[in-house]
Amino acid sequence: MDETIRNDIYDQAVQWVLEAGTIIKDEMNAPLDIETKSNPNDLVTVLDKRIEAYFVKNIKEQYSNHLIVGEEGYGDSITSLKGTVWIIDPIDGTMNFVHQKRNFAISVGIYQDGVGEIGIIYDVMSDILYHAKKGEGAYKNKEKLPQLTTDVKLTNAIIGMNHFWLCKNRLVDETTTQDFVKEVRGTRSYGSAALEFAYTAEGIENGYLSLGLSPWDVAAGIVIVNEVGGVTTDIDGNKINMLEKSSILTCNPILQDEIISFLQRGRK
Amino acid sequence: MDETIRNDIYDQAVQWVLEAGTIIKDEMNAPLDIETKSNPNDLVTVLDKRIEAYFVKNIKEQYSNHLIVGEEGYGDSITSLKGTVWIIDPIDGTMNFVHQKRNFAISVGIYQDGVGEIGIIYDVMSDILYHAKKGEGAYKNKEKLPQLTTDVKLTNAIIGMNHFWLCKNRLVDETTTQDFVKEVRGTRSYGSAALEFAYTAEGIENGYLSLGLSPWDVAAGIVIVNEVGGVTTDIDGNKINMLEKSSILTCNPILQDEIISFLQRGRK
Repeated sequence: MDETIRNDIYDQAVQWVLEAGTIIKDEMNAPLDIETKSNPNDLVTVLDKRIEAYFVKNIKEQYSNHLIVGEEGYGDSITSLKGTVWIIDPIDGTMNFVHQKRNFAISVGIYQDGVGEIGIIYDVMSDILYHAKKGEGAYKNKEKLPQLTTDVKLTNAIIGMNHFWLCKNRLVDETTTQDFVKEVRGTRSYGSAALEFAYTAEGIENGYLSLGLSPWDVAAGIVIVNEVGGVTTDIDGNKINMLEKSSILTCNPILQDEIISFLQRGRK
Repeated sequence: MDETIRNDIYDQAVQWVLEAGTIIKDEMNAPLDIETKSNPNDLVTVLDKRIEAYFVKNIKEQYSNHLIVGEEGYGDSITSLKGTVWIIDPIDGTMNFVHQKRNFAISVGIYQDGVGEIGIIYDVMSDILYHAKKGEGAYKNKEKLPQLTTDVKLTNAIIGMNHFWLCKNRLVDETTTQDFVKEVRGTRSYGSAALEFAYTAEGIENGYLSLGLSPWDVAAGIVIVNEVGGVTTDIDGNKINMLEKSSILTCNPILQDEIISFLQRGRK
């Protein structure tokens, strides 16, 4: 992507993300209509939809040839990543949003012909913007994030993962993931994939595992994690396909092979 | 406890907690000697000891007849809760402290003849002070926390628990806890018992379960949770003995019986 064009898109995207954050904060205490989507753990609020619609309207006006993939479906139906594609989760961590009124994020990844060029994750209530352009490093607000530590091993690592990994699941025998939990130093569960990517980039987690995430959950995070030397694949080490749901392992590269091998033991 | 005396102790305790927070922040980036205690997941730092020693010195100077129980062992060895007892965790969430440099707390509970009179939990890096005096409500900084919602049921609840509950353990058959995870709306794991008590008091979690906690992990939290109408027992519903380690369930009272019954199915 041309640098001038990318800088323009980046500045515009950051502005919209911050404005969307303001809309969310303003509406925070207004009563929300809560629907349940496919299951009761997957809440979606009116605001979720409103924020996505806000992005779609702005992007279509400003960049009529750009494509959009969003969780709420106001964007385009795409079958290829050709061109410039915005991959948006208007509120990542909806359960946190509804129950905690914090610990959620706006996630915007911008890809050119399938390559992640821009990643923006905004922790709205903490007013912390994680952001990166490919090849230019990752930032937490104005602070440049350092490259991930080379001083880490699995037994010394903190890994983010939700508790479902330790229950019967279709991907990995649960006794293997239980052994994994005992192998690492600690596990955490924060309830927002986007924020766990940001925490991995920051190094406060050394990695994050998820059973099944959609492109909008990971698109921004992958770009940001890349920029500090982190790596993201599915749990078998395959590249993520931005057109499909997949399992996710984002982590310090030192841990990648060992985590994949460990989980392979119980891989179904 | 006499109200004037309690107010004096409370003011003094808050001042020391905030000062201890300043010491921690000042030393935050200094190199730390990290030892491992009983297992590699139980880190303790020089600063942990220094903060406890700071409390012990101040308390012994100011209130020579008060007793102290602290994680690091600088306090007294007590076999009864008679008198005024300070129960202190200088840094709760040591792993977060070491790996994240945030998400840890100073926890101070002050008990009179076994009754929790004062609870203070200080999220140092966020500069958030959760505090309560028995019978006078709980506060987050200057904001009075509302009574816990009456609009909650298990399938709609967010519960804090670490991942070890879902692995083989000595208390509850792990398939029962796995079923529990699938029953509730969501689970979280933040890595600090004190903060999870505070989050339960705030209502951003509806409860928090732990396999084995020491008095200093829970003493302040119990007082704070009490003040918003929450309840704390072991996982069989027994009162917590402040002289011993025990399993912990702190939660919205509406959920208490149901959680205890649920776990009883797999109780060893």
